[in-house]
Amino acid sequence: MALPLRPRPFQPGIPALAELPHETWARIGARLRRRPPADLLSYGDSRGYRPLREAVAERLRRTRGVRAVGDQVLIVQGAQQALYLAALLLLDPGDSAWVEDPCYPGLRAALLAAGISVVPVPVDGDGLDVAQARRLCEGARLARVTPSHQSPLGVEMTLCRRLELLDWARQSGAWVVEDDHDSEYRFAGPPLAALQGLDQHGRVIYVGTLSKSLFPSLRLGYLVVPPGLVSAFAAAIAATSRHSPTLEQAQLAEFIAGGHLDRHVRRMRVLYEHRQQVLVAEAARQLGELLDVPPAAAGMHVVGWLPEGMDERALTRVAARRGVSVVSISSTYASRRSPRPGLILGYAGYSDGSIRQGVTRLRRTLHEVLAGSPGVAGP
Amino acid sequence: MALPLRPRPFQPGIPALAELPHETWARIGARLRRRPPADLLSYGDSRGYRPLREAVAERLRRTRGVRAVGDQVLIVQGAQQALYLAALLLLDPGDSAWVEDPCYPGLRAALLAAGISVVPVPVDGDGLDVAQARRLCEGARLARVTPSHQSPLGVEMTLCRRLELLDWARQSGAWVVEDDHDSEYRFAGPPLAALQGLDQHGRVIYVGTLSKSLFPSLRLGYLVVPPGLVSAFAAAIAATSRHSPTLEQAQLAEFIAGGHLDRHVRRMRVLYEHRQQVLVAEAARQLGELLDVPPAAAGMHVVGWLPEGMDERALTRVAARRGVSVVSISSTYASRRSPRPGLILGYAGYSDGSIRQGVTRLRRTLHEVLAGSPGVAGP
Repeated sequence: MALPLRPRPFQPGIPALAELPHETWARIGARLRRRPPADLLSYGDSRGYRPLREAVAERLRRTRGVRAVGDQVLIVQGAQQALYLAALLLLDPGDSAWVEDPCYPGLRAALLAAGISVVPVPVDGDGLDVAQARRLCEGARLARVTPSHQSPLGVEMTLCRRLELLDWARQSGAWVVEDDHDSEYRFAGPPLAALQGLDQHGRVIYVGTLSKSLFPSLRLGYLVVPPGLVSAFAAAIAATSRHSPTLEQAQLAEFIAGGHLDRHVRRMRVLYEHRQQVLVAEAARQLGELLDVPPAAAGMHVVGWLPEGMDERALTRVAARRGVSVVSISSTYASRRSPRPGLILGYAGYSDGSIRQGVTRLRRTLHEVLAGSPGVAGP
Repeated sequence: MALPLRPRPFQPGIPALAELPHETWARIGARLRRRPPADLLSYGDSRGYRPLREAVAERLRRTRGVRAVGDQVLIVQGAQQALYLAALLLLDPGDSAWVEDPCYPGLRAALLAAGISVVPVPVDGDGLDVAQARRLCEGARLARVTPSHQSPLGVEMTLCRRLELLDWARQSGAWVVEDDHDSEYRFAGPPLAALQGLDQHGRVIYVGTLSKSLFPSLRLGYLVVPPGLVSAFAAAIAATSRHSPTLEQAQLAEFIAGGHLDRHVRRMRVLYEHRQQVLVAEAARQLGELLDVPPAAAGMHVVGWLPEGMDERALTRVAARRGVSVVSISSTYASRRSPRPGLILGYAGYSDGSIRQGVTRLRRTLHEVLAGSPGVAGP
């Protein structure tokens, strides 16, 4: 998926880049880079920089109920590489994997690159439908899920479903890859703890990234794996890319240990809730029945639902021309067809003014597309 | 291969870390990090950061005779990832690849991770023996070579062999991966230009890394690929790891464009030649016939040859205990057995004092091992 380099409303997955604590980040980085010790410049540990692994484990135990010590943490380039490595290492080419349908299309690409056959599984109000997944492909070797906040629908996977999924994994010796990427931005009550914390049999690979809590171009993420898999993952990282850049890992370790990441995430939680409210209110005011934007309890985007029959493709094309970036919900379905047309609207990265302007542009876009397709009820 | 984190003599592949222009590097980095524009923080181009791709292409044209424009350059995490991606993308699991024998063992791991069958091909005084390779496995789909300075033997591949290799690749539609990792450190006369520059049929994938010319933990390298392969490589990078960190790429682009890399490499060429002389002289003085260390015309290491029958394994073990790090030449052969015992001795990263002390420790090591193995002629 080619992404515009300078994010504009409502490109999803973009955090509030202008709100990053640049001074603190740059200060830590400059100190490290001015007189780095030789062990931060030479070849590093394929598992990752030890203090960062410790800091990540401590933070995940405290904030997400993940059961992990630093030894189980592996540092990689992000959630994409994490899933790719899990598939490469744990599966054989030709094996099948369950993937939520809809999901971010790049994840299907990661599995396909590892030679895995992707089995799209419907998501309902309780999360991935495990019973249906078993009917579709009982012999799958891996399930990739976003239990805390289904991407993109926003559903939280119920406890019942989580246990059902773990049960399947245990019975069939399969693996669950839990991607917990925007779990930290929950506005209504505390989130369910990570699925990984429920796992009694070492079947869960937990994946997180700094792309959403800091910034995407940092390219640092992590896996938490059962103790018995650490050295195999380290070998796979070594064989495919050796290790992640050490100075950036050291910078991040210090940033986390100094409490700066916790502080930033707390600030962003308040800000993102506010930004979502602005978007939802503005959509209701300007778009009315043309786009139904229910509020979401978590995350960095909402889904806006369009009238039946609306041409999503024409819409995204016209929107791009009008300077607003929307992703159609259909593009996240394996069939490229959503049961109901809709748009994924990221809000976290955009100021109130940009959001309002974006909604105005979206209104004009909708009117233009409607004018061109007389079959759909006009405004 | 588990590497010690703090390099010590004579661990190979380590540049002179204390000689890096830290102030310049840190200054560029700090300026970029203090107020980075949004497009350096958001998701980036899977092919790499455009100004870095241009700077790399310009430098390779000028210094290595590589025929490339910025559009053909892809930024990756280093030579390891470059080879892995080439194998993943250009070959199918079960395909065969020629690999120089001996070679750095991590490269075999990259190919094996992509499901490739590795065919070790003997290296003689002219480089990889193409005729023998064809006899061993005519149907190989890829050849991975280090023509400018065979790693680890130090042989330069002759023009005749280069043409023979390209001829085979053209005839059989196979690929040549040229790894040019320490070509810049040549002490006697100008190096042969890159093999890639001879290629008339788009069969060569050129690979370079900043690990040797700057520092290993930076984790930035590059591929130069035929124009028709750029988008396929970009898709493979996107699927397996999205892209390399953008701020580091921007920092490096500025560093290269400012002439700092050229300047640093020129300084290091003088320094490394000197360090090699210190090592060769010191070895002659302290070790005499116990270790024959012929000077090398290029690179960051020499090979020291041991008396027949010397137990390399015992030697590396005792050496480690005595605080000196040596890699046996046998460990780089597919058979784990060199026709003649020897040690790979890196010198680039160590001061004159460390080199002298290292040789002293090596002398004690040799004496200890010889005392324990009465079959070998003693000192």
